Amino acid sequence: MAIWLDRSDAGFEARFAAFLTTKREVSEDVNAVVRDIIADVRARGDAALADYSRRFDGVDFATLPMKVGEAEIDAAIAEVDPVVLDALNLAAERIEKHHARQMPKDDLYEDALGVGLGSRWTAIEAVGLYVPGGTASYPSSVLMNALPARVAGVERIVMVVPAQAGHLNPTVLAAARIAGVKEIYRIGGAQAVAALAYGTETIAPVAKIVGPGNAYVAAAKRQVFGTVGIDMIAGPSEVLVIADANNDPDWIAADLLAQAEHDMGAQSILMTDDAAFGKAVEEAVERQLRSLSRAETASASWRDFGAIILVPDLADAIPLANRIAAEHLELAVDDPDALMKDIRNAGAIFVGRHTPEVIGDYVGGSNHVLPTARSARFSSGLSVLDYVKRTSILRLGPEQLKALAPAAIALARSEGLDAHGRSVAIRLNLEG
Amino acid sequence: MAIWLDRSDAGFEARFAAFLTTKREVSEDVNAVVRDIIADVRARGDAALADYSRRFDGVDFATLPMKVGEAEIDAAIAEVDPVVLDALNLAAERIEKHHARQMPKDDLYEDALGVGLGSRWTAIEAVGLYVPGGTASYPSSVLMNALPARVAGVERIVMVVPAQAGHLNPTVLAAARIAGVKEIYRIGGAQAVAALAYGTETIAPVAKIVGPGNAYVAAAKRQVFGTVGIDMIAGPSEVLVIADANNDPDWIAADLLAQAEHDMGAQSILMTDDAAFGKAVEEAVERQLRSLSRAETASASWRDFGAIILVPDLADAIPLANRIAAEHLELAVDDPDALMKDIRNAGAIFVGRHTPEVIGDYVGGSNHVLPTARSARFSSGLSVLDYVKRTSILRLGPEQLKALAPAAIALARSEGLDAHGRSVAIRLNLEG
Repeated sequence: MAIWLDRSDAGFEARFAAFLTTKREVSEDVNAVVRDIIADVRARGDAALADYSRRFDGVDFATLPMKVGEAEIDAAIAEVDPVVLDALNLAAERIEKHHARQMPKDDLYEDALGVGLGSRWTAIEAVGLYVPGGTASYPSSVLMNALPARVAGVERIVMVVPAQAGHLNPTVLAAARIAGVKEIYRIGGAQAVAALAYGTETIAPVAKIVGPGNAYVAAAKRQVFGTVGIDMIAGPSEVLVIADANNDPDWIAADLLAQAEHDMGAQSILMTDDAAFGKAVEEAVERQLRSLSRAETASASWRDFGAIILVPDLADAIPLANRIAAEHLELAVDDPDALMKDIRNAGAIFVGRHTPEVIGDYVGGSNHVLPTARSARFSSGLSVLDYVKRTSILRLGPEQLKALAPAAIALARSEGLDAHGRSVAIRLNLEG
Repeated sequence: MAIWLDRSDAGFEARFAAFLTTKREVSEDVNAVVRDIIADVRARGDAALADYSRRFDGVDFATLPMKVGEAEIDAAIAEVDPVVLDALNLAAERIEKHHARQMPKDDLYEDALGVGLGSRWTAIEAVGLYVPGGTASYPSSVLMNALPARVAGVERIVMVVPAQAGHLNPTVLAAARIAGVKEIYRIGGAQAVAALAYGTETIAPVAKIVGPGNAYVAAAKRQVFGTVGIDMIAGPSEVLVIADANNDPDWIAADLLAQAEHDMGAQSILMTDDAAFGKAVEEAVERQLRSLSRAETASASWRDFGAIILVPDLADAIPLANRIAAEHLELAVDDPDALMKDIRNAGAIFVGRHTPEVIGDYVGGSNHVLPTARSARFSSGLSVLDYVKRTSILRLGPEQLKALAPAAIALARSEGLDAHGRSVAIRLNLEG
């Protein structure tokens, strides 16, 4: 039911270009509503949060406090299957180890003139982590968002999560504990984003807000951007699988469906050099769809956005893959390295037939927060770098100032900035 | 005329908090106009660019082509004072050397289980650089924006600059040539941003747009964000000078004015432990103001946003400086290192009395595009990192998949994602 595109067809370029720009999200215009909610939280603080939580989540803070207590977290963890707890711990350990390698190093040095130059990295002081409620409340996402912050040295990590009818996902609380999150509030929506950005009586403001959310959360993040930092606004998930005929069609079908089951706007693409193999995968997808609990979501995604792209040769897949710039790229071919060296735009690459993308979702160690909607052309997945910032440092003595002054003064003059010139010249006159 | 704040006053905290949130920009709502311009450029391409350029810039592409030719650049460079050309070349050389140290390194490794993990960095393929017209057309900004892109390995750097009545600043063209920019169009405003993001018959689209601009340019960048990457939206410039009484008041006054002359919304702050010194600086500012060609701008900035903050002890300056999170921070004190080690939030630090911020604007080697409006709490100045992106890499063989599968399957089940579980399990069943 997915569309087929054949690189050898005369009309391919036009069809592929149209395919690339297909919108997979309905953009709801919720800006006005969100603007009002933010203004209300800024004006009324905790009282506004209590009202919205009663109205939207059916939670009364008079009976269930806004801040999630340690005892509540302990009780939740006791409910979680120990096998799942072990899996979370293994995932956390692997994620932490991998991300520790991303910590940038300070670079302070003197150049030939004796000018001191440098870059110094420091952690952001406080970060807010938005966790969606309901079925999109993923414990794995808590680990993926919070652990790089902990590795970076962020002192305060604040989690917000809406508690529909008071209910919080116990596995999410377990993941928060494992990730070292110590401050959790049962609030969600635009009001939670506003509280993190501006603070209330109970919640101190943070400097950056990360994590996925619905249209209201995304709009709120865009509106508070500037007052605080935000991560990327993630779109629906996507996978591009480049596969030759030497694969089991069922393996590849399972990978395509693992993406499709996320969201009706998710996109799964197979690129292959063998039409018969493509057909076999298509049949396997239809067969496997029947037994999925999220069959409705997965089949809508596959029907509306799924694609099988036929290329004359696997080498022809590379330029197309670079244009698609997929969030996830699987290379299920005999010689994945031959393809990989020329892949330039991809959020993450899963190399070889034994690396299903799902391993990266959970326990690979790399981050599963990756650029969607072709933004891998210009951006990267979440990392420790998102939780640190760089201060540049410049240090001159009288000698160095003397050496660089004439050029600085010439440029200041050419830009018509007198005071700029004076700020340098005045020091030289006094120096003699 | 600047305001005075005294850390020892009872009402200090409230006054300082209010000072921190003072808005220094009128936010014009130009979104609707910009939306129409972008739609028009997408629909009509070059023809729309020609219309807007005729209307807004008074340029007719029938007589002066949209693309700036090599001969025109050669002629412009011949007009530039050789002293300025030398200064630009010195600046470029120093900027390039410093930024080369920022290039991140790939990290590919195997962990104890034999799982291949990694980060691979690649340059963004094409970048657009917006350069404002008129008096805000700074050659130094061309170097600061374009050179890190060149160091990163960006193949295509496209510059757009409006040519009011056909005129382009020859020094800007010289800077572009020195920075290796080979593709220049005389267009500006929201229409130039739209052309870079979506392309026209003449201009191929880019993947990221950087550079400063007016309210229309900023709104256009926000609107095309997602289709392309953008850099930060820069606000008016600012400096915080922490100075003891052992400074020449005239040096510090010159530094404060160098910031104030940029923009009526710029902000210059002196923090000192000596009231008499503060007074002396204030008097020096008034005196120096008289002889500035941009006296009107500088005195409006100093009057409306300038501040002198008195602290009992220099150590008290640190927490306040971290809250201000200034774009530029000068440490004009006897022992700058003692202060610097605890400074956490600052775009750039200028260490010691012989490092006026202006050196960093031009020839220090570090970048002068820095976070404004307190955003140094969560973001960094422009660097090579803004022109590269990271792909993460995961590689498992059958053994590694077997080792990690149980945890991945447990987490997939706990999140209710059947196809995720199957994508891992199916490979193990076949493996035995």
